[in-house]
Amino acid sequence: MDRIKRQILQALLVGEVSVYELIDRQDASLNEFFEVFKELLRENIIEVDRGKVKLTKSGREIAKNLRNFGNYCCINCEGTGYVINKHFSEILRRYREIVKNRPEAVDVYDQGFISPEGIIRRVEFIHERGDLYGKIFVVGDDDLFSIAAALTDLPEKIFVVDIDERLVNFINNAAKEYGLRIEAMVYDVQQAFPEELRRKFDIFVTDPVETIPGLKLFFSRAVSTLKGVGSAGYFGITTLEASRRKWYEIEKMIYDMGFVITDMIRKFSVYPDDERNFFTFQEKLPIVKNLGVKSDYPWYKSTFFRIEAVKDPKPLVEGEMKIDEEVYKDEESWATPY
Amino acid sequence: MDRIKRQILQALLVGEVSVYELIDRQDASLNEFFEVFKELLRENIIEVDRGKVKLTKSGREIAKNLRNFGNYCCINCEGTGYVINKHFSEILRRYREIVKNRPEAVDVYDQGFISPEGIIRRVEFIHERGDLYGKIFVVGDDDLFSIAAALTDLPEKIFVVDIDERLVNFINNAAKEYGLRIEAMVYDVQQAFPEELRRKFDIFVTDPVETIPGLKLFFSRAVSTLKGVGSAGYFGITTLEASRRKWYEIEKMIYDMGFVITDMIRKFSVYPDDERNFFTFQEKLPIVKNLGVKSDYPWYKSTFFRIEAVKDPKPLVEGEMKIDEEVYKDEESWATPY
Repeated sequence: MDRIKRQILQALLVGEVSVYELIDRQDASLNEFFEVFKELLRENIIEVDRGKVKLTKSGREIAKNLRNFGNYCCINCEGTGYVINKHFSEILRRYREIVKNRPEAVDVYDQGFISPEGIIRRVEFIHERGDLYGKIFVVGDDDLFSIAAALTDLPEKIFVVDIDERLVNFINNAAKEYGLRIEAMVYDVQQAFPEELRRKFDIFVTDPVETIPGLKLFFSRAVSTLKGVGSAGYFGITTLEASRRKWYEIEKMIYDMGFVITDMIRKFSVYPDDERNFFTFQEKLPIVKNLGVKSDYPWYKSTFFRIEAVKDPKPLVEGEMKIDEEVYKDEESWATPY
Repeated sequence: MDRIKRQILQALLVGEVSVYELIDRQDASLNEFFEVFKELLRENIIEVDRGKVKLTKSGREIAKNLRNFGNYCCINCEGTGYVINKHFSEILRRYREIVKNRPEAVDVYDQGFISPEGIIRRVEFIHERGDLYGKIFVVGDDDLFSIAAALTDLPEKIFVVDIDERLVNFINNAAKEYGLRIEAMVYDVQQAFPEELRRKFDIFVTDPVETIPGLKLFFSRAVSTLKGVGSAGYFGITTLEASRRKWYEIEKMIYDMGFVITDMIRKFSVYPDDERNFFTFQEKLPIVKNLGVKSDYPWYKSTFFRIEAVKDPKPLVEGEMKIDEEVYKDEESWATPY
């Protein structure tokens, strides 16, 4: 039995589990998960009724050597290792207040945003690393990370580029209204990179799309902005739309750009089922279409990476690179609207 | 000001801090830390008295744009994300009972062992990944991980190799006395690898030495034992004896062996200041000699890695490779006895 099957059966030993919670209890990408799920149904190991999954009698027999030892994920910090302390609770409160009228996520740009708590934890982590000072470049800011980071009053300057004019306007207006050191500009990563932004920043932050061509573009633009050795990048990557084989390619890209991976925290960021988030157009997502039931569990999470330049940073792409659809979609993008 | 200096000054904003706690609050290797520390003293930014460090008046001026926002590391799980739940508390109790007469760490093999809680968390993490079943290969087992894992009664078989006959005997005796499915054998990673152990195991677990030649040997021996694609490796690496440049080389090795890094949890394992641990010979460690004061804080921690084969695993070294001293020592091994 392979590991992914074991993870699924282990989870089902406690009884009936939502299929979306099962997705969260295993490490395969969505399309791989769906294959295993179909196989388990076909082999009469599991049964499913309106999105609730349980072991069949023969399934219980097959799983008899597996064990579920109960929960060992820390509920105090949601398994992230970071709590929101007194100081950051106040920043969280102000952040929530500012972003409450944020533009809704739209399907055309594959948008989606992580929870406010997740954003604050990112700021804490970057602060702990000594990286919250200086100049920060943000590529794509559906998460409105720039606002949370600026509320600490530590970054010298935050510069945001985003393809979505609504977000750029929202950020620039918030910056003006609340006196935050942020500047946002409309920019599509496919365009040639503005010369004046090169080699000016200490760190970058991004939540890239997860296709290989898209990642190449996001990383290359982000890396072009960094000053040099010691500069760092922070970003989230899922296991859901990026299989382990894709991660292998991603890690090679990071190496080739001259960066070492220093951190990789699983499920650090959660995309909440919020009325302005991408769950509103979930019926367009392949995983939802294929399962035939709507989400009832916050299953979309990402691993938080930190990378640091040990050589002069080397973007993989320079100049314009038009790839359109390919930026957003490949055979693993099962949580991206089709 | 570079990031490491900022991390140190950030930590000192609360007042006097032990130099060993400072080591734990920054990301540089021990030799790099010591350089920065000397520089801060020379520039009259910090002062030190019997191992206690504080900012000078001019230091406070220089640090005036930095902020310490208080602790945001989760105390409930020690920042690891994993708690020891009811089931594992019982395993921890039995593990402690069995290992209480463990052989002391000896300097000749650069031994040292992580806390019992840290070992249990490793077992939980491996279980969560669906990797605790099947055959487990352990290269070097000062931590007595094999005993904790076997106490779950899940692994089909655990095979341990260690250079230290005392440990091998201890493990084999414990296995016999408590009916655990573990077998241990004396083996030095420099020797040619036993043919009968090749391609037989599902996962490996190791805490390698941290020199590049030593890592090559540990990884190569461990990787030789794995069955193929999907097999995984678990190990700890510090930032203290392995700089970011060394990590960059390590990540390249992992890639070249055909593995993707799937997890990397900072400070997952702590080496406690226990009377049988390597702190008993701390006066032989370069960092202690250089600082001139004994440790008063559990500063030696490691990042826990998980790697998974996406190609047929390819060891970097085959056959015998005699390198002696070089296995254990390089210019970064400042927590290794000289």
